[in-house]
Amino acid sequence: MAGNTYGQLFRITTAGESHGPGNVVIIDGVPPGLKLSVDDLQPDLDRRRPGQSKIVTQRDEPDTPEILSGVFDGRTTGTSIAILIRNQDQRSRDYGDIKDKYRPGHADYTFDAKFGFRDYRGGGRSSARETTVRVAAGAVAKKLLRQTFGVSILGYVTQVGDLVYRPEDPTAITLEQVEATPVRCPDPATAEKMIALIEQLRSEMDSIGGAAEIVATGVPAGWGEPVFDKLKADLGKAMFTLPAVLGVEYGAGFGVCTMRGTQNNDHFTTDADGRIVTKTNRHGGMLGGISSGMPIVMRCAVKPTSSLPQPQDTVTRTGEPTTIATKGRHDPCLLPRFIPMAEAMMAITLADHALRQHAQTMGR
Amino acid sequence: MAGNTYGQLFRITTAGESHGPGNVVIIDGVPPGLKLSVDDLQPDLDRRRPGQSKIVTQRDEPDTPEILSGVFDGRTTGTSIAILIRNQDQRSRDYGDIKDKYRPGHADYTFDAKFGFRDYRGGGRSSARETTVRVAAGAVAKKLLRQTFGVSILGYVTQVGDLVYRPEDPTAITLEQVEATPVRCPDPATAEKMIALIEQLRSEMDSIGGAAEIVATGVPAGWGEPVFDKLKADLGKAMFTLPAVLGVEYGAGFGVCTMRGTQNNDHFTTDADGRIVTKTNRHGGMLGGISSGMPIVMRCAVKPTSSLPQPQDTVTRTGEPTTIATKGRHDPCLLPRFIPMAEAMMAITLADHALRQHAQTMGR
Amino acid sequence: MAGNTYGQLFRITTAGESHGPGNVVIIDGVPPGLKLSVDDLQPDLDRRRPGQSKIVTQRDEPDTPEILSGVFDGRTTGTSIAILIRNQDQRSRDYGDIKDKYRPGHADYTFDAKFGFRDYRGGGRSSARETTVRVAAGAVAKKLLRQTFGVSILGYVTQVGDLVYRPEDPTAITLEQVEATPVRCPDPATAEKMIALIEQLRSEMDSIGGAAEIVATGVPAGWGEPVFDKLKADLGKAMFTLPAVLGVEYGAGFGVCTMRGTQNNDHFTTDADGRIVTKTNRHGGMLGGISSGMPIVMRCAVKPTSSLPQPQDTVTRTGEPTTIATKGRHDPCLLPRFIPMAEAMMAITLADHALRQHAQTMGR
Amino acid sequence: MAGNTYGQLFRITTAGESHGPGNVVIIDGVPPGLKLSVDDLQPDLDRRRPGQSKIVTQRDEPDTPEILSGVFDGRTTGTSIAILIRNQDQRSRDYGDIKDKYRPGHADYTFDAKFGFRDYRGGGRSSARETTVRVAAGAVAKKLLRQTFGVSILGYVTQVGDLVYRPEDPTAITLEQVEATPVRCPDPATAEKMIALIEQLRSEMDSIGGAAEIVATGVPAGWGEPVFDKLKADLGKAMFTLPAVLGVEYGAGFGVCTMRGTQNNDHFTTDADGRIVTKTNRHGGMLGGISSGMPIVMRCAVKPTSSLPQPQDTVTRTGEPTTIATKGRHDPCLLPRFIPMAEAMMAITLADHALRQHAQTMGR
Repeated sequence: MAGNTYGQLFRITTAGESHGPGNVVIIDGVPPGLKLSVDDLQPDLDRRRPGQSKIVTQRDEPDTPEILSGVFDGRTTGTSIAILIRNQDQRSRDYGDIKDKYRPGHADYTFDAKFGFRDYRGGGRSSARETTVRVAAGAVAKKLLRQTFGVSILGYVTQVGDLVYRPEDPTAITLEQVEATPVRCPDPATAEKMIALIEQLRSEMDSIGGAAEIVATGVPAGWGEPVFDKLKADLGKAMFTLPAVLGVEYGAGFGVCTMRGTQNNDHFTTDADGRIVTKTNRHGGMLGGISSGMPIVMRCAVKPTSSLPQPQDTVTRTGEPTTIATKGRHDPCLLPRFIPMAEAMMAITLADHALRQHAQTMGR
Repeated sequence: MAGNTYGQLFRITTAGESHGPGNVVIIDGVPPGLKLSVDDLQPDLDRRRPGQSKIVTQRDEPDTPEILSGVFDGRTTGTSIAILIRNQDQRSRDYGDIKDKYRPGHADYTFDAKFGFRDYRGGGRSSARETTVRVAAGAVAKKLLRQTFGVSILGYVTQVGDLVYRPEDPTAITLEQVEATPVRCPDPATAEKMIALIEQLRSEMDSIGGAAEIVATGVPAGWGEPVFDKLKADLGKAMFTLPAVLGVEYGAGFGVCTMRGTQNNDHFTTDADGRIVTKTNRHGGMLGGISSGMPIVMRCAVKPTSSLPQPQDTVTRTGEPTTIATKGRHDPCLLPRFIPMAEAMMAITLADHALRQHAQTMGR
Repeated sequence: MAGNTYGQLFRITTAGESHGPGNVVIIDGVPPGLKLSVDDLQPDLDRRRPGQSKIVTQRDEPDTPEILSGVFDGRTTGTSIAILIRNQDQRSRDYGDIKDKYRPGHADYTFDAKFGFRDYRGGGRSSARETTVRVAAGAVAKKLLRQTFGVSILGYVTQVGDLVYRPEDPTAITLEQVEATPVRCPDPATAEKMIALIEQLRSEMDSIGGAAEIVATGVPAGWGEPVFDKLKADLGKAMFTLPAVLGVEYGAGFGVCTMRGTQNNDHFTTDADGRIVTKTNRHGGMLGGISSGMPIVMRCAVKPTSSLPQPQDTVTRTGEPTTIATKGRHDPCLLPRFIPMAEAMMAITLADHALRQHAQTMGR
Repeated sequence: MAGNTYGQLFRITTAGESHGPGNVVIIDGVPPGLKLSVDDLQPDLDRRRPGQSKIVTQRDEPDTPEILSGVFDGRTTGTSIAILIRNQDQRSRDYGDIKDKYRPGHADYTFDAKFGFRDYRGGGRSSARETTVRVAAGAVAKKLLRQTFGVSILGYVTQVGDLVYRPEDPTAITLEQVEATPVRCPDPATAEKMIALIEQLRSEMDSIGGAAEIVATGVPAGWGEPVFDKLKADLGKAMFTLPAVLGVEYGAGFGVCTMRGTQNNDHFTTDADGRIVTKTNRHGGMLGGISSGMPIVMRCAVKPTSSLPQPQDTVTRTGEPTTIATKGRHDPCLLPRFIPMAEAMMAITLADHALRQHAQTMGR
């Protein structure tokens, strides 16, 4: 209830801070018999980890997961799976500034207001470090979705500052294209410019916002619930659980504001196999909150990193005016490392709804 | 689990279709002792109901609520409150077209894909009619928020097609200004143009999209949970549970994509009372998913009504190409009636987090 | 969260008091396509209702259910089903005594302590009247269990005061045998004595306790979860949610206290069809909290009715010593009407676990 | 949903098997500011651990907990607390028999029926080893209950085979009396006989059942919810989640079956402080499912250990008749080690309801 559990049937519960012993996730509801090992988790953890490229933070965190339970003889048993990722970078250091001063854009003040007390080391529970175990759980969800339901999930960067990339066909993009550059924009020309912009921002001791698109292909029609647990609502929540996300849209998104019904409606037709599809996909793969069988396409707006190495105005815990310049190494742009996090949250949400649909309709 | 329950401590469960006997909500978790009667529910129901003005659908649904339980001697008892709103417009008629043809932009096809079977009368469970009881529950949440926590919620239309209104100070807008015109845009000049545009669209047998802004004032710092039940995540889900919403943002929203950290960060300071506040509110009242004490400001993109009186291409249940022109009276623009729905969902979500914060921190 | 919702996938939420407008249940999670009408609900409601025989309370409540949603063309749609049962006996009368005096054995005092305020008319929310809609929901669960899973549920009275009946084979008892007498003990000789005892207690203005046994046959091996949601735990909770239940046991129950392992262990063998079974059923159909395929056998201890027409010592709300003699008509023994309530709670719990098992194991 | 989470506001989620790397619990909802260290956890873990006395199993498991998160500077932060207890006894050995043969009274068969696959090493997830982390979480709940609410919890053995102890005043028993003997029966004379009986059973390669009583003192009137989450229902479930429990009762329990209303009703009066109390406590501290302010008194029936070193009839996974004699060291009587487990489950349940009452009634 205190918000550390997510999902209904495929359900994750997490704990951990950035500078404590480690982060742990318990995944409940994974069907028995799925082949699983740490090798399934490591690739996405590597895509999320600091130090992976020159345009992200240069901290060194190898993020090696240990599966504590729920897997036997290389397969899931159907019981709860615990995964532990120990923190490496726990060395004692001076936290004086963030202990007593509120960093702009961070949760320091709101945690104090909520709890009256906080683990101030590196942001504690509010640190993006807690997403490590989400990414690990997401890798489990991805494997379940792929093997059991034929669903694939892929994200990529579509915007950094004013540099925008709009793919003609989101479903044609491959993981290789995404991973070809450290910025995770599948268009090489735009990627190059984005990288240059990010490097420039770093040199200016500043940061930059952007957007990402996350796509799920292969989702059959029928996932999601009619009223409150609409698939769009749960996927919307999924994205907003991630740090720095200030906007989420799917399909035509905010573009619908200026559209007429005759322009926006996607007409039904049949494909070569006689399957009912829509001619266009402005509805982003969900109608009435239920998947339509068309690709699910979402976009997230991610704010520029709040931590800046240059001094910013703020106050102390007692309200005295002061300035703070964040020490340590930070990402000048959050987007490249955001991709595996967003993919993970989409995967966990879809895995949950896959099992929910299976449950209520008795596998029809 | 099948998605008809929303919230944790302030929790609503709903049932009902557009053309069945009625809609019902059970509200669980309302503290005892709150004064409550149907008079508290009727105003927002009237703001939501069809036929209220010339620019909305002309169906006549009085939407009279009956409180079935949980209130005694004019006060809540702390036990579950059931509210029933009977449907008036249940007359038998010809549903032939929507029984066998899939309306573009509607949930007809996805319901069939999910359940293999659906109540096709007027959209059944997928009809926006199910929001009646959400609005009733929202009125209860609003009263609790106002009386116990000093929180106010107000929404208004900011965009219809290309007509955009951006308030200088969202917290200065009054209910009277919003209700002064049937389009619920508080700026009289823009409202007039919006009304003209909507009337034009109706005459062209078309519809138009738009956007709304929903604002909560008086929320103290500290509501919301750190990780999955971030306030922004739960409010984001709240908005996406509403029909026709394709995008949600808060604070600077998608505007952050082009911002630098030095531009976007809101600096902390103290107000005249020595309370810690931010100089600006690009963070929309939430930091790290927890309320900051600043106004909560959200925006939703609402698509143009999918139902159109002119023929649209589609297929039958068996995949045969056909056309469908929706009979009956529909809103050429959903925004005016969207406002009370969005306010209700924000109120229910905030009431839930108010009780959650109270629970875990033992009322500190 | 305030305790008016029960179950995970087959989930019911209830509202209503004894002397308000009525009681309502929303059932969420019923698979689509199940044939359902009020005719499915009425028989169990009639078994529960007052006035059905000379040995129960003589109040007249016909308990006619209205299905408000979730059923279309005689079949469930997969969306939430609301059932309303209006109260008939709402006539105004003098509640003075129970308003100001605490009835021994009732929830008057504890409700006041909890909420500071209560609906004192006939017990309000603490009245057994709230079980009407549980019985209606139980009838839906029973139908689902019977038609989809081949599971049958039957309860009967095994004890009234010192009169005890122990069936040789719980699975051989039929509904006809149970319903043959108003006391619902399937053994005619014992039933006759029980009826006489109950009539004697009524004439003495007293009441008597007893026990019931509830049996589920046809439950396949594999329902229930390993740790917290053990089937025995959820069934145990199910029974303890019912008014007046002070003890629950399954299989050998409290008899295990004096047994040795060599006496208590049920040995595995195979039946005529080669299916693995146990030679005996002291484990009551559940091992490790998971159904074994053997009949599930539970017993509940039900206290004597607390309401007595003779004066009992108590205090007023302000602590003044006084006496109270309960007015109105009450059951001298709760057991006969307890049977349909207990069956309903077992059915709802098993339907929930049926769907849960289906969900996680993907229908294996 | 797969049953590894327990509680609503004070909520635990567990993972782990008997012979995997370890067991872990995530505790969510602990209020911030509670002093906590491993020293608070160790005493109850020591009371639960094998090898603590001559009458329990002689396996050596030190059960050292590591707090991974949620505690900073010696106090809880209000975020999720993860506790890891690594397994020591993971040496490879021959599991051949329990891999292929079904142990009578164990969950081997039902796990196979449920999941089609199981971790057969030492019972895997069905092993009582999973209760280690419940006991750790229970220690946290106990500290919260004691410090914030003044509630104490104590359990003791009341029966081993035919040897029965009935305390005159359950609230007068002290932890020292309970811990004075390894059998945890506070009456020295009965304890001595129980120990002798257990030793005799061990020498006969057999086991014996028994019963325990668990008492909570200091619980204020008002905890628990009216309908489904009655305190008796949640405490009943709590006890039934524990391995080997076949019966649960509170207050007069099954004794009510033979009682009349005039005998069973507890009359209200006031105590020396003017507080409303009952003269007797046959209702076991709960009325209408809500705490009455009187001590909460529960009893559990615990079956004799199913694992026996002598051969028992059973079948193989393929249904072939065979015998199995359990290797390894087992408790000839489960009761002594059951006490800390039952206390833990009562503590977790009461802590949950303490926060729930605080939430809904706004701390009244």
